[in-house]
This record gives sequence, structure tokens and C-alpha cells, in this order.
Amino acid sequence: MIELTRRHLFAGAAATALVPLATDGRAFAAAPAAGKQAPGFYRFKVGSMEVTVVTDGARTFPLADNFVTNVKKDDVNAALQAAYMEKDKMTIAFNPVVVNTGSKLVVIDTGNGPGAFEQSKGAVGQMHANLAAAGIDRNSVDAVVISHFHGDHINGLITADNKPAYPNAEVLVPAAEWKFWTDPSKSEGNFANVKRVFGALGNKVTQYEADKEVVSGITAIATPGHTPGHCSHILSSGNATVALQADITNHPALFLRNPGWHVTFDMDAAMAEATRRKFYDRMAAEKITVQGFHFPFPAAGHVEKDGNNYRLVPIAWNPSI
Amino acid sequence: MIELTRRHLFAGAAATALVPLATDGRAFAAAPAAGKQAPGFYRFKVGSMEVTVVTDGARTFPLADNFVTNVKKDDVNAALQAAYMEKDKMTIAFNPVVVNTGSKLVVIDTGNGPGAFEQSKGAVGQMHANLAAAGIDRNSVDAVVISHFHGDHINGLITADNKPAYPNAEVLVPAAEWKFWTDPSKSEGNFANVKRVFGALGNKVTQYEADKEVVSGITAIATPGHTPGHCSHILSSGNATVALQADITNHPALFLRNPGWHVTFDMDAAMAEATRRKFYDRMAAEKITVQGFHFPFPAAGHVEKDGNNYRLVPIAWNPSI
Repeated sequence: MIELTRRHLFAGAAATALVPLATDGRAFAAAPAAGKQAPGFYRFKVGSMEVTVVTDGARTFPLADNFVTNVKKDDVNAALQAAYMEKDKMTIAFNPVVVNTGSKLVVIDTGNGPGAFEQSKGAVGQMHANLAAAGIDRNSVDAVVISHFHGDHINGLITADNKPAYPNAEVLVPAAEWKFWTDPSKSEGNFANVKRVFGALGNKVTQYEADKEVVSGITAIATPGHTPGHCSHILSSGNATVALQADITNHPALFLRNPGWHVTFDMDAAMAEATRRKFYDRMAAEKITVQGFHFPFPAAGHVEKDGNNYRLVPIAWNPSI
Repeated sequence: MIELTRRHLFAGAAATALVPLATDGRAFAAAPAAGKQAPGFYRFKVGSMEVTVVTDGARTFPLADNFVTNVKKDDVNAALQAAYMEKDKMTIAFNPVVVNTGSKLVVIDTGNGPGAFEQSKGAVGQMHANLAAAGIDRNSVDAVVISHFHGDHINGLITADNKPAYPNAEVLVPAAEWKFWTDPSKSEGNFANVKRVFGALGNKVTQYEADKEVVSGITAIATPGHTPGHCSHILSSGNATVALQADITNHPALFLRNPGWHVTFDMDAAMAEATRRKFYDRMAAEKITVQGFHFPFPAAGHVEKDGNNYRLVPIAWNPSI
């Protein structure tokens, strides 16, 4: 027997579905599963600045033999399992950041782009929806700061129909990165993607140098190796400091835990490792909160030394701000 | 000079505020800081069940000398600082859970109650707002399962005007807990609060025994010590298992890291410690995900042994479900 219960009064469209029967013959009718994750943003203060981490989602893919280029796949699987992750696959998160400095609204890196949403069945390309959920209007963004030119950082500069996603923003890019990736003699792979994305912006960018303020309160530091012009960014306000590391490491359970491991995406692996060790030694010594583009959302934590390696201690979620 | 910029077109009510001047005399006018945290809920699947962690918020208070009854305050401060928390104060989160078993919508523990929202200036008493943000109608809840009778677990059973907060739900309570706290010869402290809360429900509860299914898919286990009838709950569906530990430990950085430390809230500290070690030894050996009422939101992780102690490895946030 199928009974209409009070649940049907609340369930809306779901009320038209047939109500399955429990094994004991009773009609059962729990509220339908929501099937939808919470909006992917998280806020915290850095002095008087307000930071909103706005996730672009996460991709899961089979673990390639050479995902870590200098250790055996078995060792990678052992590290994944030690971190309570499944073996033989990899999940990588993408976490752009929005900083309201008090005088400017600044997006730092832009995710895989809305064009990736459908292709990935909603796994990535979430940033624009999450910006909206966070109450951030893309038209109000004053500046977009790019750490480096890989697609998961720049593709969100443009909409699915190749229009500027932040039409009123100055786009700031590392000068060394611009020089490398706009070499007219190169056209393969990421060179083509760089041409496509910045071409859609009419190549209207402002190049910035490391060790200078990019925007008041946001200082770029050179952290090369992952790409030639890769930059990280230090947010500073009052006594508070947070470091946005960008891609100094990929997943912390593998590469922060094992800083000597080389991810396939690092273009100069030895330089990337040297950058990594120097950066984390400073973060650990000064107890600076590190925001990692590829750390699991909300993607912030402290780095502690563990012998020759490191361990990430994620921040505690603050349910207020 | 105060200029009206495009920002004012978007800023709504904020547009009437005076726009401060930057030190260089330019008008600046970033989008106003949001000042509001993301909705505090998080979803994951346990087999075919859908779990929604719905935070009630977090309280911060000065660290009392006897917060940990059997170690010196200096040791507690050292542990706080080792976990990148401030010394001399304590922040405790409250994380009730909603389980959609497929046939029942079940709330497990209820937070500090909406009455605490104003008194705490919004720090706690957030659960009802977060349930609404999660799209969960309190009228649709079929069952409320209580782990034990401390106020932060039962006060949310009633609204600010002392009406049942889940008017259509069966309220399930541990039989041993009911027996202890309804002793008619006692009237002080928490005994009075228990009388107040359950009185508002007309004392209409269903008592449950440990080691039995409370609701299909949710099994109670006796984990006494924190209170005499304290229960935890095992969610089980298909091959998946998650343990809702309730108050087997308070903050993991102190008491999971140092299982021999006794929090002032444990009524029988020796029994609580024995329960704790037995429970975590099992969780670590079987690699079961543990959901902790007082863990930082979203309050789930794996427990690993570290000599005679333990370490919590928080789960990675999944931006999809």
C-alpha cells in the first residue's frame, strides 16, 4: 500500500515519485536525499582584510605510473593509503582565493573555467557558482592576480563563450611567466592554451615583478620550478600574515609529506624541490598560515617539520567570522 | 573628493555610506566586506545513506586552570600552541549530524539550542539556521537520537519559546542516561536542565539500549564515562561505516592527542579514558571514519596511533557528493 504522508506535502516535485515499500510492508518516505554539497566557500580575516576561499571543485583520475616521477607507484600508493585515500587514484582540489583588501576586491587565480563544468560533469568549473553563493559579483572585482599560467589557474579568466569573466578587473601576471609562455616560436600544449585565454582578453594584462606589492597588502614572491615564472603571494595586514603558496606543492599528503617527491607537473623538478624546502622551512619557523591552491578545501593549514619532511595541520573551521 | 563609482551601483544599501579616502587621496571603494561565514553544513555518503553535518557553531572562552583536571595549565597551553591555537583560551565546536537513511530522516544530537544564539552573540545556536541553509525542514525529521544529556546535545530539542523543535520526530534517548538524569531526588545543575528540556516535550521519549539498532542502519554502542549512559552511534550501509563518537573526547588537539588527559566535563574520568582508548584502538585498527561532535567542522577524520597517543587526520572536503 502506498500512503501519502505529511512528507509529500513538503517534498514538492518529489511527491509525484512512487514511494517504495519497506521490507516489512510499511510505506516509507524519508525526505529525498539532497545530493548536493554545501556551497564551496570559506571566509577568514587577515588583519583587516577579508579572504574568501572559493573552490573550483576537485578532479579524480587514475594514478599514472609517472604521477610522481622519481618514486615507484607502489610508494605513492602506500602514501595515499597512509593518508586514508584510495590507492591507484588521485583527487586534486582547486582553490582560488578572493581578497577584499578594504580598498580592492582581488581574485587570485581563477580555476579551470566555467567551460570545464560540463566536461567534468560538475566536478570542476564550480568557481563562478561558488562566487555567486558567496555573494561576490564578478563585475565588482578590481584585479585578478595570476600565480602562473597552467590552465587550472588561468582558464577561469574567461567565460564559456570566451568573454572576460572579470570585465572590470586589471589582470596581473608574473612578468617572467608572461615572457616564457608568449614565446612566438612555441605553439604546442600549454603555449596554445595561454594564447587562447589571453587572446580572448585582447592580451590586456599588467606584468608584475616578484618581491613587490602587486596590490596594496599583497606581495608577490618568486617561487620558481613548477613553472619558470611561478609566484606565490603574501597577504599582510596589521600583525597578520598568510601565504598563498599556489603550486609549490600539489597534494599535501604526497608532496608536503615528501618534499623530495617530484610531481609530473613541475617543469624544473630540482628547482621546484629547492623552492619547496626553502618556503616550508620559513613557514614552519615563522608559523605562517599557508593557503594551498591544491590543498583540500578550505585549503589552509600550518606546516610542521617532521625530520626531513613536513606535515600539514589544517586550520580549524571557524563557524563565525 | 568622493566619487560615485560603478561599485555604488552594486553595493545597494552600502552605497549611502561615506567612501573613505586612500592615503594618496584617491577615492577607494572596494565591495563591502561580507562579514558572514559560509553556511555551516557538509554532506557525505555512507553507502546509500546521506549524512549532513550541521554545525551549531563554536564557543571560545578563557582556559580554566582545571579544564584538564590531571595536567598543569602550562602543559595544556603547550599542547594548544603545538596545534597552532592561541594559549589561555579554548574554542570548542558543536557539530550535530543529520542522517537520511533512505527511509528515515534522523537528527543525532541537537546543539545548544536556538535560545543560546542571542546570548552567545551568534557564536552558537546556529543549528536551526544551518538546517534551513541545508534545505532540511525540521517538520520532516522522523527521529532525534540523543547521545547523552549535556545541554549542548539536548537543548536544541526545543525552540526559544520552549516548543518541540522537531514536532513530528520520535525522540530516542539512552535508557541508562534517562535513568540517571531523571532521578527525582536530584535537582541541581544539569538535572534541572534535563527536567526543563524534556518537560517541554511532555517527557515523551523512547528509551533505547546500547548494542542495538536505534534506527535501521544506526546502531548505538555504550561508551560510558563522559556521562553514565553516554552512547556513540555506528552508521552502516553496504561496506561503509562511520562512527559518530559524540563526546568520547572533547577537542582532538588536546584529548585525542593525549588520551590520558581528563577534561573537566568527564563525570567518571578513569572510565572515560578506558572507553576512549578502547574506541580509538578499534577506529585506528579498522580505519573507520570518526565523526566527533566537538571536532572542528566538518568534524570527521581518521584516527592514527602515535605511540601511546593518537592523531586525527581530518577528511578531505569533497566539493561534490
